[in-house]
Amino acid sequence: MGDEKITTAAVIIIGNEILSGRTQDQNLCYIGQRLENLGIVLTEARVIPDDERIIVDTVNSLRAKYSYVFTTGGIGPTHDDITSASIAKAFGVRLEQNAGAMSALKSYYEEGMINDARIKMACVPEKAVLINNPISGAPGFQLENVFVLPGVPLILKAMFEGIEDRLDNGPPIVTESITTNMREGQIAEALGKIQDNYSEVSIGSYPFFKRGRLGVNLVLRSRDKKRLESAGMEVRVMIIESGGKILDNS
Amino acid sequence: MGDEKITTAAVIIIGNEILSGRTQDQNLCYIGQRLENLGIVLTEARVIPDDERIIVDTVNSLRAKYSYVFTTGGIGPTHDDITSASIAKAFGVRLEQNAGAMSALKSYYEEGMINDARIKMACVPEKAVLINNPISGAPGFQLENVFVLPGVPLILKAMFEGIEDRLDNGPPIVTESITTNMREGQIAEALGKIQDNYSEVSIGSYPFFKRGRLGVNLVLRSRDKKRLESAGMEVRVMIIESGGKILDNS
Repeated sequence: MGDEKITTAAVIIIGNEILSGRTQDQNLCYIGQRLENLGIVLTEARVIPDDERIIVDTVNSLRAKYSYVFTTGGIGPTHDDITSASIAKAFGVRLEQNAGAMSALKSYYEEGMINDARIKMACVPEKAVLINNPISGAPGFQLENVFVLPGVPLILKAMFEGIEDRLDNGPPIVTESITTNMREGQIAEALGKIQDNYSEVSIGSYPFFKRGRLGVNLVLRSRDKKRLESAGMEVRVMIIESGGKILDNS
Repeated sequence: MGDEKITTAAVIIIGNEILSGRTQDQNLCYIGQRLENLGIVLTEARVIPDDERIIVDTVNSLRAKYSYVFTTGGIGPTHDDITSASIAKAFGVRLEQNAGAMSALKSYYEEGMINDARIKMACVPEKAVLINNPISGAPGFQLENVFVLPGVPLILKAMFEGIEDRLDNGPPIVTESITTNMREGQIAEALGKIQDNYSEVSIGSYPFFKRGRLGVNLVLRSRDKKRLESAGMEVRVMIIESGGKILDNS
């Protein structure tokens, strides 16, 4: 541990429809889970409108700060799809028609169906490496440490799987969930003391109200499996000693 | 129009559990919808970890930039609930036990159930104005233009309704949704031309794949109802002229 290099990431969700509440974002949750599996720490996410200046500034600020940046949304054929052009601007490079992307579009669309708007989806910043789209033809792309992905969750997932082998994994993060019928206020003090003794373990406490049950989910996360197990044991003992029960996770 | 003042807002979602993908955020979508109804433009959202320095920096950066800032999460009784203390730090004020908050807790909990951890939920920055929690006792608070709300969606909604009359409404935003069986690439060019003629109307294009149907939802948004209706009419005519159908919104 100690001086192991931590791989970090940020997600930029681009789209007026997320900010207006028209669309419930699903991509952040998915990307967060995949990165956690890869041992990459997702440190920040931003949701921003379809505005070139804001996209350029946000991408440039975050790509300097994190190992990886993933953008979602805005790479389709319509006038409000301005992500690719904005990324080119952020890097100060030209947007160009990419031969690989054109051939992907050609194999997806029937002959005669490729028009100017669709050709726009084959225009990516120069030197970008394509990200294959196994579902609807139009590719995403990687430029240095920035990965440009679509907004439609089904397509995003299919494309994300294809880039996981390009990412430097960090040491894997191990997690343990413990569910109890106790209320947060009943265990907070004892839980805080356990946290104080385990600086390598992050203990999160999340109250729930579902199917008529109340309780707390405690989630332990660490890169140190032994310390995680030991902290988990102490949390279980603490719950029993406080008069609580440990419930099935669900 | 023209020099009407636009009221803007940002949302800060505080919680490791959102970044790790353990929890699907639902609050941004809800707040976005409510603000749109109020004519307030939600311009940005950030998801950040439970980290005091990051909370302080993010709150200070965004409260200077937008009319309102709404934070969600981190106001419970456990060690990882550090939002209230961080907000006090961001404003350079003391955290103090609030009499109104204590009395709200006392009326919620049975006698003898209030311990130090729960008293922590009654500690808010000095000069904060409480936000009533009709569900589980512990209040949120407002400090200047920053509104501090909980992470549990059910409680957040109940509390948000209680603060809407504190917000300066902007001129209301009118929206119209038009659903078609066309693909984005088939209408992109004609749609872009309509957008070029209607700078006061924002036209968003969102492809969908659901229940075996493919198509596009076009969402028009404006503060100018007449221009919105006129743009909507042009979009409908364009779809028909392109050989498409207009479908029921659903």
